[in-house]
Amino acid sequence: MEKQNLDKMFDFFREIDKEKFIGRQTYLTNAVRKENDAEHAWHASLMTILLSEYANEKIDVLKTVLMILIHDIVEIDAGDTYAYDEEGQKTQQAREQAGAERIFGILPEDKGKYLYDLWQEFEKAETPEAKFAHAMDNIQPLMLNDHTDGKAWREHGVYLDQVLNRQKKTAEGSQILFEYAVDNLIMPNAVSGALRVES
Amino acid sequence: MEKQNLDKMFDFFREIDKEKFIGRQTYLTNAVRKENDAEHAWHASLMTILLSEYANEKIDVLKTVLMILIHDIVEIDAGDTYAYDEEGQKTQQAREQAGAERIFGILPEDKGKYLYDLWQEFEKAETPEAKFAHAMDNIQPLMLNDHTDGKAWREHGVYLDQVLNRQKKTAEGSQILFEYAVDNLIMPNAVSGALRVES
Repeated sequence: MEKQNLDKMFDFFREIDKEKFIGRQTYLTNAVRKENDAEHAWHASLMTILLSEYANEKIDVLKTVLMILIHDIVEIDAGDTYAYDEEGQKTQQAREQAGAERIFGILPEDKGKYLYDLWQEFEKAETPEAKFAHAMDNIQPLMLNDHTDGKAWREHGVYLDQVLNRQKKTAEGSQILFEYAVDNLIMPNAVSGALRVES
Repeated sequence: MEKQNLDKMFDFFREIDKEKFIGRQTYLTNAVRKENDAEHAWHASLMTILLSEYANEKIDVLKTVLMILIHDIVEIDAGDTYAYDEEGQKTQQAREQAGAERIFGILPEDKGKYLYDLWQEFEKAETPEAKFAHAMDNIQPLMLNDHTDGKAWREHGVYLDQVLNRQKKTAEGSQILFEYAVDNLIMPNAVSGALRVES
C-alpha cells in the first residue's frame, strides 16, 4: 500500500515537470526570455511567505503557499491564457477543469481530492488564503513587467485600465500591497507610455 | 518606514529573479533541456509538502518549504556546483557564504537575518527540517535522472557508489523515502548501465 501510494505520488511529480514547459507572457528581469509557470510559482511562493504580514485578513501561510505552488498545474493540459486575452478566457474554465481532474487524479485519492479542492478554492477567490494567493499571482508578473519597462504590455498594447481592473483582486488580498503596486509598479508605466491611456 | 521595507523586499524579489538563469546538470523529463534552480526549488517545495508525512522526525512544514525555496539563492553569485564536482566543492563554501551575505542583505534587517540563518541551518543539515529539506533536494533530481535513463549521469560518468553516498543524507531525513529511492530510482540504473559500477 505504501509502495502504491509512493508510486502514485512520484507519477504525479514526474507529470508536473511539464509545468516547466508552459510559457507565460511575462519577460524575466533580463527582458529577453519569458518565464514559465514553474518559475512563476517559485517566485510567487517566496513572495507569499515574506509578504504574508500584509494580508488584509489573517491567513494560513502554508495553505496559501501550497495553493500558489499548484495553481497553474492545470495549464499543463489547458495552456497559459494571457490575462488580457478575452477570446481565450471564454474556454479557459472548461479546459482547466478537465486538466485538474486528470492531473490531480494521478495522486492517491485523499491527496488528489485535497489538491483539487484547494485549486477550486483558489479559482473561487473567496477565502482569505485564495484572495492573498491571487494578490501574489498578480503582483509577481506586475513587478517583472514594470522592471522590463512594460515590454510585454507594449507588445500586447495593454491599457492602464485593464491592469488596474485586474489588480482589483490584489486589493481584496492586501490593500497595502495594492496601493504600493499602483504607486510604484503601475502608474510610472502610464507616465512612460508603456501602458496605453485612453484619451 | 513601511514604504522603505517594501522597497527593500521588492528589490530582493527582483534580484532573486536571477535564480531562473542558474543552470543545473539535471535534464527535465523531456531529456532535452536542463533545469534551472528556480524550477528545481518549485518542484522540491511541492514534494516537501506532499511527502512531509514520511519525515523521520516531525517537521515544521512551512519552515522546511521556505528553506527549500531559498536554498539555492546563493548560487546567483556562487554558481551551481555539480554534486559530483570535487574541485568545485573546495571553494563552494566561501563563494556561497559571500553570496548569502550580499543577497539576503538586500532585505529589511530582520527578514534578511532570518533567511540567512535558515540558509545556514540548511547547510549544517542537523535539524529535522534541514535533514528533510536535503532529502527533497536530493530526491527531486534523482527522480529526473532516473526518468531520463540517467542521461546526465552517463554524460558525467557517475558511479553508483557516488549516488548512494550522496543519498545518505536522504536517509537522515526519511528512511522510507531513501529505501524507495534506492529500489526504484537508483538500482535500476546500475542494472541498465546508466550508473557505472566498479568491478
